[in-house]
Amino acid sequence: MKKALVTGGAGFLGSHLSRRLLDDGYEVTAVDNLYTGSMKNIDRLLENPRFSFLQHDIVRPFDGEYDEIYNLACPASPIHYQNSPVETTLTCVMGMHNVLERARATGAKVLHASTSEIYGDPMVHPQVEAYRGNVNTVGIRSCYDEGKRCAETLASDYRRVYGVDVRLVRIFNTYGPRMHPNDGRVISNFIVQALRNEDLTIYGDGSQTRSFQYSDDLIDAMRLYMDKPRAEIDKFFDEKNLEVPVLNTGNPGEYTIATLAKEILRLIPESKSKIAMRPLPSDDPRRRKPDITLAKELLGWEPRVPLAEGLEKTIAYFRERILDSDE
Amino acid sequence: MKKALVTGGAGFLGSHLSRRLLDDGYEVTAVDNLYTGSMKNIDRLLENPRFSFLQHDIVRPFDGEYDEIYNLACPASPIHYQNSPVETTLTCVMGMHNVLERARATGAKVLHASTSEIYGDPMVHPQVEAYRGNVNTVGIRSCYDEGKRCAETLASDYRRVYGVDVRLVRIFNTYGPRMHPNDGRVISNFIVQALRNEDLTIYGDGSQTRSFQYSDDLIDAMRLYMDKPRAEIDKFFDEKNLEVPVLNTGNPGEYTIATLAKEILRLIPESKSKIAMRPLPSDDPRRRKPDITLAKELLGWEPRVPLAEGLEKTIAYFRERILDSDE
Repeated sequence: MKKALVTGGAGFLGSHLSRRLLDDGYEVTAVDNLYTGSMKNIDRLLENPRFSFLQHDIVRPFDGEYDEIYNLACPASPIHYQNSPVETTLTCVMGMHNVLERARATGAKVLHASTSEIYGDPMVHPQVEAYRGNVNTVGIRSCYDEGKRCAETLASDYRRVYGVDVRLVRIFNTYGPRMHPNDGRVISNFIVQALRNEDLTIYGDGSQTRSFQYSDDLIDAMRLYMDKPRAEIDKFFDEKNLEVPVLNTGNPGEYTIATLAKEILRLIPESKSKIAMRPLPSDDPRRRKPDITLAKELLGWEPRVPLAEGLEKTIAYFRERILDSDE
Repeated sequence: MKKALVTGGAGFLGSHLSRRLLDDGYEVTAVDNLYTGSMKNIDRLLENPRFSFLQHDIVRPFDGEYDEIYNLACPASPIHYQNSPVETTLTCVMGMHNVLERARATGAKVLHASTSEIYGDPMVHPQVEAYRGNVNTVGIRSCYDEGKRCAETLASDYRRVYGVDVRLVRIFNTYGPRMHPNDGRVISNFIVQALRNEDLTIYGDGSQTRSFQYSDDLIDAMRLYMDKPRAEIDKFFDEKNLEVPVLNTGNPGEYTIATLAKEILRLIPESKSKIAMRPLPSDDPRRRKPDITLAKELLGWEPRVPLAEGLEKTIAYFRERILDSDE
């Protein structure tokens, strides 16, 4: 039986991935320091004898033999990472380092969850993998953006120097059930506000665009990517003149924030919420949209879940949680 | 008596800075792991009772109480940092982290040596401090470029979160006596080749430009910057809408590599060397030139040593070393 480690395994995406790996027959260990992850996300998984949980901060080294390591650990929303910026940077860099050391020692394959944030406020649109980004090194988002950039660098050097089989995905905005309700991200914000009949807060004029990927689509891409034989991956990226295997994953459908707000209000018809405008925070990117040509070619993958369908499932999840917590 | 710590104190710039601090009446501790630094660079300093040397890798924490910490430790030439890319990234990030932790614990001021490499292959020319750079996260130079970017981020967050008094300089190409003779940098390369009557190797067609700052000019800027009262610095950068104190230091005089080669051959008239062209390595920046308006305004500083004069002093140093080592 294949053994997988999922760092950040009690988080939003980590818990979805752990569920999928169990479904695929793996023995799964989730490691999480529970800074933003939650035991509630994995309570059903814990009933499975092939699942185990380890509370640990990957900034410090860890042991264990695994066939595959999925490195998802990091606070990913500005509210969380700006509360502890130094720890965020260290989680990105030293967490990646410890994952790579484990892989180097045991021969595990690594799939590292990078992010569209490494493109910063992009000057190229949509973003292709070869784009180098437009990131501020000294701003309030830098702890995450630069930490994630540096993690990509470490991963690349472990691949070049030690031959570690590491694959990078740059994840664009992703949403779905088990998102953190208070993480300040636009979809969870809007849904929670609409369910509570509070005004939906738009920062700026609402014309900034985002793309929204449903969590199941991302998990599909990650599993397909990890399952690809290394030789195929190397050949593919070699032919593209890309030095390391890095794939954008996201939904290229582009929506303005204002459109998203209206769509959510349409799907929650009982809501009495209106829309409220607030000033745009510093360093907020204006546009972000993935070019997913490479993932399509290599994996035969593209997102399948339409926004309205994904939103409905997410709204159902929050409806239950909000009712729970408001009781 | 004020106490200063210089990380990388046995290196090219660290040894010059240590000398200057001794001249200015400081008690100086140089810390170095001697990966690229050399005891030869500090043999005269060791005769001074106010100077001490500590062999230590700043990737690991260290102790001591200092008034000022100058963080210069890092392999800075591609030959060296590409030989140990993982260690380079860790020196940048964990080294900075340990310096900042020391400063946080003791109230030391920190001057961090960042680099023009954080601009990558720049799309803005000359480079101003607000420019975000064009850096590849997954290339063979990334260990240094991204490590240094991430160090800036950590410094900024220690300033914002813990109030550490940290000042950043982005150092452009700097040369002078005590440069490493085999570090593959263009000035040391050309001088050593010319003295040995070997052909001067130009990578690419020689039309790429660089600016060359003489080491004494840089040390002037660093000392002026560290001596500025914090309130003045904060006010200055506030008015410029820059979130943290960061200054370019470099010589804005721009020379093509081909011109530099000819100038060095002119200054070593006995040389029998010719010029040889080689292919350009990947990620090599095409142009690099500092905008030093901010340093001029804040410090009243600008470079004073003309290229020919700096080259003469550097040639004199290498002449002695080459004769020594060729005997």
